[in-house]
This record gives sequence, structure tokens and C-alpha cells, in this order.
Amino acid sequence: MKKKAVVLLSGGLDSATILAYAVKKGFECYAISFDYGQRHRLELRAAGRVARHFHAAHHFTVKIDLRKWGGSALTSSKIKVPKSGIHRGIPVTYVPARNTIFLSFAVAWAETIGAKDIFIGVNSLDYSGYPDCRPQFIKAFAKCANLGTKAGDEGWKFKIHTPLQKLTKAQIIRLGTKLGVDYSLTNSCYDPDSKGRACGKCDSCRLRRKGFTEAGIKDPTLYSG
Amino acid sequence: MKKKAVVLLSGGLDSATILAYAVKKGFECYAISFDYGQRHRLELRAAGRVARHFHAAHHFTVKIDLRKWGGSALTSSKIKVPKSGIHRGIPVTYVPARNTIFLSFAVAWAETIGAKDIFIGVNSLDYSGYPDCRPQFIKAFAKCANLGTKAGDEGWKFKIHTPLQKLTKAQIIRLGTKLGVDYSLTNSCYDPDSKGRACGKCDSCRLRRKGFTEAGIKDPTLYSG
Repeated sequence: MKKKAVVLLSGGLDSATILAYAVKKGFECYAISFDYGQRHRLELRAAGRVARHFHAAHHFTVKIDLRKWGGSALTSSKIKVPKSGIHRGIPVTYVPARNTIFLSFAVAWAETIGAKDIFIGVNSLDYSGYPDCRPQFIKAFAKCANLGTKAGDEGWKFKIHTPLQKLTKAQIIRLGTKLGVDYSLTNSCYDPDSKGRACGKCDSCRLRRKGFTEAGIKDPTLYSG
Repeated sequence: MKKKAVVLLSGGLDSATILAYAVKKGFECYAISFDYGQRHRLELRAAGRVARHFHAAHHFTVKIDLRKWGGSALTSSKIKVPKSGIHRGIPVTYVPARNTIFLSFAVAWAETIGAKDIFIGVNSLDYSGYPDCRPQFIKAFAKCANLGTKAGDEGWKFKIHTPLQKLTKAQIIRLGTKLGVDYSLTNSCYDPDSKGRACGKCDSCRLRRKGFTEAGIKDPTLYSG
């Protein structure tokens, strides 16, 4: 019988690669997405397409409303998505404690279905400087999961897999392409237009575009600008 | 100006005491409750009463559906709430990763409103053996919050206050009574009847009843059994 794994699936480039990777490693994959009030809610449709493409055992979307308190360009209409290029520091697209929230649901689901393995596509090379993508955070969260669960109490060790952690975007794209990811199914843009076309100018679009160029692989994304 | 604090408010005895405590310490309190599909959803009304009683600056209820995957007597109708007395080990009322989820929302809200202080009424003396109530979990979570947030990255230290951690239920009741808590407003029962009366037999009722007896304070709870 296959080992179960919970895979965080946003519908973006990294998480699609991670799902392909976990499938390749032989896991029965339980994909989890979050409808959290994000500006680019469109990514949820992408997540569905990717989950179907890789025959995830289950694909579950957790509904939570982070717009209630906002505090991010992704969860508040009052804050604009920056489009002038990537700058130093943590940008306004940072969503307070987002990965802490996402991982806590992932652990809850993992414990319930009897999965020890959780996959998340965090990356700290070609990224936006979000603190909850760094190795030291992931390590601290794993400790937390083991101390705060019945499974952990019974000696079960949750493992949070982050195979993209130290890859460049180009390396991620090459890896995914080898694993059969169809990147035209995914969405990375923070601010797609009404036709679903990527803006091409937000940090996430810029990182994606640069990645395809550096990888020497044709970018299948439909850009509006 | 008062310092802000986020206070986890379930509507039970411990969290009501914690809110009274945080108010007494001079914090402007932002109370947060969770409508998570709990069997004893009635506690949310209790949370509202308690928040009003102590003039919380805000009271916010986060809606999340943990019934979708169940795995606990509190979030699944397939698992009965045990009523035969408190036994060794972690009981079936344990909800997978519940406090990890709750605290992650609390940190997200705290970061958004600019609060460094979070209060939670966990206790590891007169409790049900839940792993996410123990000091080592709380310590691990605080580390996680500091590493996984922009605020933490900027040198801001979140503090998770757990003043009830080492108190008996009787000591908690004495403390709360001194602080003006009206325990008739609260609900502890996991399985109240349709009239809102406590069952008197679940672990939570047993701990509460014993607490009032030991404190020598009249228990205002309406029990059905």
C-alpha cells in the first residue's frame, strides 16, 4: 500500500512541481488548497486542474476568510500589488502568518488520515523574501507539529518535505518539466485580469518569466502585459 | 495608549478567566473565537456574552470547517463523547492540531493589528491530556510565530501568555471569581442538550464540577444529569 502524503497545492508553479515530485516518489497524494480571500482566486481553478492531471487521491479546498482583517495586498483591496520590479525587504504581498495557517491545517488533515509526510513548495532563492518560506521556519513548524499532536505524542514524526528549498526558479522548471508538469495549467500571477491572463509585472510573474528564460524552456503563460 | 492583545476565547471557563486576566493587566483585548464545526457550538454564544461582559475592543469569530475531515468526537457525529469518567491517555475528544490552527490565526490577527501579546487559557494540570495544551508545545509555537512572520523578522517578539498553565481548576475558578468572571455566562460541556444544559458527565463537565467543589464556590452551571 502506498504511503499517504498531504501536499500543499496553491495552483502555482512551485506547488505543481511539488505534487509531481511527491507522486513520482510513490506517495498517495492528498492535495490541499486554500480559498482564503486571495486576490488571485483564479489559482484555485489551476490547483484543481493540476490535482486532476496528477490523479491526486483527494483534493480538498479549505475555506477561510483572511480578507476579514486584510493586512496584505493579496487579501485587501486597499493595498495595491506592486508592479515596478522586485525590491529588497518583505513586500506588501506578504500575508500575515499564511504558511503557519496553511501548514497547521495540513498537519490536522495528515494526522486524521494517517499521513506522516507533508510536502510544501517553499523556496528561498527566487522568492519574495517571505519569512514563512525559509528553512528555519519550516524546521520550527515541524517541531511544533510533533509536540502539538496526538500522533507526535505517540512517537510519530511528521516530516515536512521542501525539495525546492534551494533550487532556482529555472531549476524548479527543469525539474517539473522532467516530471511531466504542464505549466500551462498553473497560475502564478497575483493580479490576473478578468480573462485570466497574467499581468507579467508583479513579483510572482517576474520570477516565473525569468525562470523560464533561464531554463531555456518556452513559457506557456498567457500575459496581458 | 493601551497595548493590544489577542485573546483566544472559546467561551469556556478557562478562556473567560484569561480574558478577565488580560483586561486586568491593562491590555486592550481583541478576542478571537472559532466556529470550527464543534459539537458544542453553543460555546460561541457564551464567548459572545463573555466578550461583552469584559468590553473586549473586538470579538471576531473565525469560521473554519473541521467537520470536513472529522477525526474527533467534537467534530464528527460518528464518534461519541465519552461520559464514563476521565481515563489515562489522550481521549477521543482530542481535535487534530486544534491549538496549532487556532494560534496560527491568532498570530496572523496579532501581526495585522500590531499586537505582540497573545493570551491562551491552556492548562496542563486539570485537563484532558491534550498535547497542544502543554508548555513545550506553546514554546515551540512561539518560536514558529517569530520565525514565520514579518514582524518576527523585524525583531518583534510575540509572547504567548499562559497564566493558567500550572493552576488547578479550583485555583482558576478562585482567580476568575476575584477578577469578576461570572461563570454562569460560560459553557464547558462538550455535549450540551437542546436546552443548553450541560451533560455533567463528559470530561470537561467533570473537571469543571470538581473545580467548583474544590474551590468551595457555588457552581452556577445548569446540569441535565
